[in-house]
Amino acid sequence: MIYFNSDYLEGAHPDVLRRLVETNMVQTIGYGCDEYCASAQEKIREVCRLPDADVHFLIAGTQTNTTVIAAALRPYQGVIAAESGHINCHESGAIESAGHKVIALDAPEGKISAAQVAEYVHWHRNDESMEHIVYPGMVYISYPTECGTLYTKAELTALYDTCRELGLYLYIDGARLGYGLTSDACDLTLPELARLCDVFYIGGTKVGALCGEAVVFTKGNKPKQFVTCIKQRGALLAKGRLLGIQFDTLFTDDLYFRISRHAIDMAEKLKEVIRSHRLSLLLDSPTNQQFVILEDGQAERLGRRVAFSFWEKKDDTHTVVRLATGWSTTENDLEELDRALSESL
Amino acid sequence: MIYFNSDYLEGAHPDVLRRLVETNMVQTIGYGCDEYCASAQEKIREVCRLPDADVHFLIAGTQTNTTVIAAALRPYQGVIAAESGHINCHESGAIESAGHKVIALDAPEGKISAAQVAEYVHWHRNDESMEHIVYPGMVYISYPTECGTLYTKAELTALYDTCRELGLYLYIDGARLGYGLTSDACDLTLPELARLCDVFYIGGTKVGALCGEAVVFTKGNKPKQFVTCIKQRGALLAKGRLLGIQFDTLFTDDLYFRISRHAIDMAEKLKEVIRSHRLSLLLDSPTNQQFVILEDGQAERLGRRVAFSFWEKKDDTHTVVRLATGWSTTENDLEELDRALSESL
Amino acid sequence: MIYFNSDYLEGAHPDVLRRLVETNMVQTIGYGCDEYCASAQEKIREVCRLPDADVHFLIAGTQTNTTVIAAALRPYQGVIAAESGHINCHESGAIESAGHKVIALDAPEGKISAAQVAEYVHWHRNDESMEHIVYPGMVYISYPTECGTLYTKAELTALYDTCRELGLYLYIDGARLGYGLTSDACDLTLPELARLCDVFYIGGTKVGALCGEAVVFTKGNKPKQFVTCIKQRGALLAKGRLLGIQFDTLFTDDLYFRISRHAIDMAEKLKEVIRSHRLSLLLDSPTNQQFVILEDGQAERLGRRVAFSFWEKKDDTHTVVRLATGWSTTENDLEELDRALSESL
Amino acid sequence: MIYFNSDYLEGAHPDVLRRLVETNMVQTIGYGCDEYCASAQEKIREVCRLPDADVHFLIAGTQTNTTVIAAALRPYQGVIAAESGHINCHESGAIESAGHKVIALDAPEGKISAAQVAEYVHWHRNDESMEHIVYPGMVYISYPTECGTLYTKAELTALYDTCRELGLYLYIDGARLGYGLTSDACDLTLPELARLCDVFYIGGTKVGALCGEAVVFTKGNKPKQFVTCIKQRGALLAKGRLLGIQFDTLFTDDLYFRISRHAIDMAEKLKEVIRSHRLSLLLDSPTNQQFVILEDGQAERLGRRVAFSFWEKKDDTHTVVRLATGWSTTENDLEELDRALSESL
Repeated sequence: MIYFNSDYLEGAHPDVLRRLVETNMVQTIGYGCDEYCASAQEKIREVCRLPDADVHFLIAGTQTNTTVIAAALRPYQGVIAAESGHINCHESGAIESAGHKVIALDAPEGKISAAQVAEYVHWHRNDESMEHIVYPGMVYISYPTECGTLYTKAELTALYDTCRELGLYLYIDGARLGYGLTSDACDLTLPELARLCDVFYIGGTKVGALCGEAVVFTKGNKPKQFVTCIKQRGALLAKGRLLGIQFDTLFTDDLYFRISRHAIDMAEKLKEVIRSHRLSLLLDSPTNQQFVILEDGQAERLGRRVAFSFWEKKDDTHTVVRLATGWSTTENDLEELDRALSESL
Repeated sequence: MIYFNSDYLEGAHPDVLRRLVETNMVQTIGYGCDEYCASAQEKIREVCRLPDADVHFLIAGTQTNTTVIAAALRPYQGVIAAESGHINCHESGAIESAGHKVIALDAPEGKISAAQVAEYVHWHRNDESMEHIVYPGMVYISYPTECGTLYTKAELTALYDTCRELGLYLYIDGARLGYGLTSDACDLTLPELARLCDVFYIGGTKVGALCGEAVVFTKGNKPKQFVTCIKQRGALLAKGRLLGIQFDTLFTDDLYFRISRHAIDMAEKLKEVIRSHRLSLLLDSPTNQQFVILEDGQAERLGRRVAFSFWEKKDDTHTVVRLATGWSTTENDLEELDRALSESL
Repeated sequence: MIYFNSDYLEGAHPDVLRRLVETNMVQTIGYGCDEYCASAQEKIREVCRLPDADVHFLIAGTQTNTTVIAAALRPYQGVIAAESGHINCHESGAIESAGHKVIALDAPEGKISAAQVAEYVHWHRNDESMEHIVYPGMVYISYPTECGTLYTKAELTALYDTCRELGLYLYIDGARLGYGLTSDACDLTLPELARLCDVFYIGGTKVGALCGEAVVFTKGNKPKQFVTCIKQRGALLAKGRLLGIQFDTLFTDDLYFRISRHAIDMAEKLKEVIRSHRLSLLLDSPTNQQFVILEDGQAERLGRRVAFSFWEKKDDTHTVVRLATGWSTTENDLEELDRALSESL
Repeated sequence: MIYFNSDYLEGAHPDVLRRLVETNMVQTIGYGCDEYCASAQEKIREVCRLPDADVHFLIAGTQTNTTVIAAALRPYQGVIAAESGHINCHESGAIESAGHKVIALDAPEGKISAAQVAEYVHWHRNDESMEHIVYPGMVYISYPTECGTLYTKAELTALYDTCRELGLYLYIDGARLGYGLTSDACDLTLPELARLCDVFYIGGTKVGALCGEAVVFTKGNKPKQFVTCIKQRGALLAKGRLLGIQFDTLFTDDLYFRISRHAIDMAEKLKEVIRSHRLSLLLDSPTNQQFVILEDGQAERLGRRVAFSFWEKKDDTHTVVRLATGWSTTENDLEELDRALSESL
């Protein structure tokens, strides 16, 4: 079996693990107040060119989204997201369980536009029943999106301008941030992205860490008592060092970007392999997730040798499957995939 | 000014108010345990032909929907509704504030079908990520719908069969139940409707009461400690008699149905008036809400003399407005509307 | 049977009901935007001498408490209350269901002191684990308390000074406000009380209305989008006029205070009756609720003729029962009570 | 500086870390469905002698408590706990944020008794206002308690008998379970404890793991869709293997118990050191947490050399501090503590 089903197949990048081993017996205080967290926070502020940013380490994606959204919104507010947004689809209703509506907008290829946001807000503000309708308080986007696509700098600028004009938070879910920023299609730097939103998170789990996401409030706009909000949501790790050490390592010597770029190189080769077998892609993803259209029979046969994710039924006879590369994907994996395709199709 | 903007323009039907006056100084115990509530519950059980039904009186619609849904669902469950459903649009996120996602389905003319529900549930059950997706636990429909339309007996039967097969609650929001049941287009009796769902409510606020909605659990399926759930949601009235007396009156001598039918008669005449001015209706509503397409200029001029609700922009130059009749609408109101139309168009 | 079990035994004060009848067929817009609500709001602002206060009408007490507290607090905050406070004891966990901890302090005779609040907040602020402990964000008191006692002007002033110094909201639950303000033991006027808190509510349900509580934000400090918060909590009445007309009547010609004072007069006579039978009172309540200590056998015999509330077991052989007077209590009721006592003890 | 301030000072026990390194590049599926989790679950079922138990791995304590309690309770229910219980004091209101009241009972030395639980439930069931009061649905205890004390087998048996009789869940927070089970004062085996409750968790974070708590539903009583509840609460780790591998190692060759016992041995020696300096202990803790009474000046001086936790002010001139041993405490640490005490007192 070759595994292309996700980007969290192994443990941590070896450098990360090595650092955990080296520091294991050092004694620290708990709950993220240790020196490793401090160092990692400093490195993240530097790489973002945001000397005053507030950086917090949470453990996993859903809890990060819930904690940030619940801390930022007031009870009468909801969060605008793409229909395909992770918070709308795959978080078991976590946002609603924290009391907030996800206001889902149509999103061809996973992206929503400044115009859509503006239109929604204007509709709301002009509606006779405005007070009976959830107030949009935040826009949530993913970079890259759940479909592997990227917002351009122009699109993100327009979104953020609109959000500021309309008084909405802009929050970027960066579960796969590295795989976006190192894509050839990316026309943004990390400092640029960091300035084009109010808060975002740098995903660790899918980019070389055992676990962990780094939330960055970019403008001195951290919600009050945010640590208590993290604790209340169950997202505060007693051994916060586990997160600090990992992010400190990932942001030493550009490790985060180097391993992200490797995944993108592998994804580009993956596309070549796919195309060489005359298979079609659902959309043009420039990041580490690729969506391949297969006849149902092909999907079944290939599935015996290659682990992938079911994405959706394309039509009565075709299935779309997702293949993901990651920091750990090897050339050898791609050769085996090529062979499996040759023999399965 | 003539008022057609809603069906809650006046206080209560005079008979209801008279009964409140007559009973005013009788002393009773509180919280709905009084004899008036008991009598009203008995009458509702009789008119529904459900001798074992549990009947509870709540004060208003949004609190009724929230209380029933929060009591019936488990934390991992959401409620399927039409995109235009009141809980999805006009309850300020009350359902989400109670922790549950509203799963909105497309709903031409406000109705969802058994096939849509089945398709959604089957999609969920077959999805690889099923456990990361909110479980549908209930189907919420309105009768009549927010668009004034009605489910046929066949449609409702199919929906309920599907719900039972799939293990979902079926809940009917009857804020305007009387205006549905007495419509010429209705092919259901109240006992039939009551048997084709798990729980529904009989709206009082919009059908002659000062306030109040009667929740009916049809099959001995009242959620445990439902009174405590009502209290927790702030929906338990100390002077529960206020609700008991009103419903007792509404369900004496068919008052509820007689005043509902009057509103339908007025709505039919309203349609004639509209058509006589060569105006179009957005859809064919057989109940007390009518949706009239006006040129923007017409809407503006008419709005100076007739109170109506803005419904939506039809296109760049046309607006849809809602006119509602009710138990209190008079022939004279219609004549004045006719005159206003003649002079405004 | 004579009823002393509560202060919500009948419908409304006859003047209130008369006004509902008189205005019944006047057409108004809904949701509290009508002219009756406007008039009542103006009268309440005047009687409170707070020309800029925000006044909102909600339907019942628990929903009022939940709505105000949930709108005012942030997720990491809880509300300090007396152990015997209504929100801590008798609201079915409504505050917690809205996500907030009730921080209960010992409260002999139902009152908490400025010193207790200060001590708690200082303990919290100095605790090493402060961030892992709910932040006190509000102090909730009842006036009169659930035990019938009253805060003196000095006590309330100290509490409010402490709250302002520590950055806490002070919220007064005035379910029985009239019965406090007209007590001989009250050394506060309504305008004084209104200035000594951030928000309070004037109870209607227990003081002559069918239902309804008037929330007063005293200092231009209404939480943002409070109407949407009311709607979300299910506390917005479609026929808001029902509340407006009642409060408009109660605050015309001092009706609210006149009927409150009547209840106090009756309570004083009630105490005389109790004492004349050599029965003891649990505490010295200067308001409309009286707590009588009975031998268990006495309680049982008396209970056959007089409806009262069980309060608590005093010891193995004694029971405390609550008797309440209200706007509707008559001299005749007291005479019958006297007779019942003579014959039961 | 010598650290005695907590039992989560270092990373993981070296064996645990070694196993993470060895397995690092093995590819697995995510979300706890991997073979390491399966193996750890099997070992835990064996060591508990509960072949049918459901075992789930969550990341941290607060999220575990919130997830279990929110999944097990209905909205109208609260959870009974000791006043000093972790959920009542140090979880930032997490339980309330999930909608449930913590019903706190007095708890000398951190323990509550069967009699207290029974008394509370009987009081509730007999109260006239029962329906207006949160229903107790679960009893939460900690083993060891937050004060380091242990329930005896007789006490736990009585509690569980009472819970079953009254229809309450019994849930044991085992954040420091190992330090309880290996204490000389413990008269229970793990299989016995497991049978004397409905659900408990085996703490990893404080007993040798980087993070992780193993929830055990003991009687086929796992709440429905518990994985979705875990996900909704943000407690589902994408790389679930991180938890599986750690618990698999801890439950291989009795590692969990061996390192727990080591901490107890160190705690016994710690007590000797304390006593040799004629210092008093607040209470007789037979587990790894010790509470030492110091004069304020002593506390200040000692605090310059020894890291400990502030516990409480004993009186105006004395302070209680907590010193904890753990799997990593060494004889050398104790010698240094002895020296520091000699030189500071």
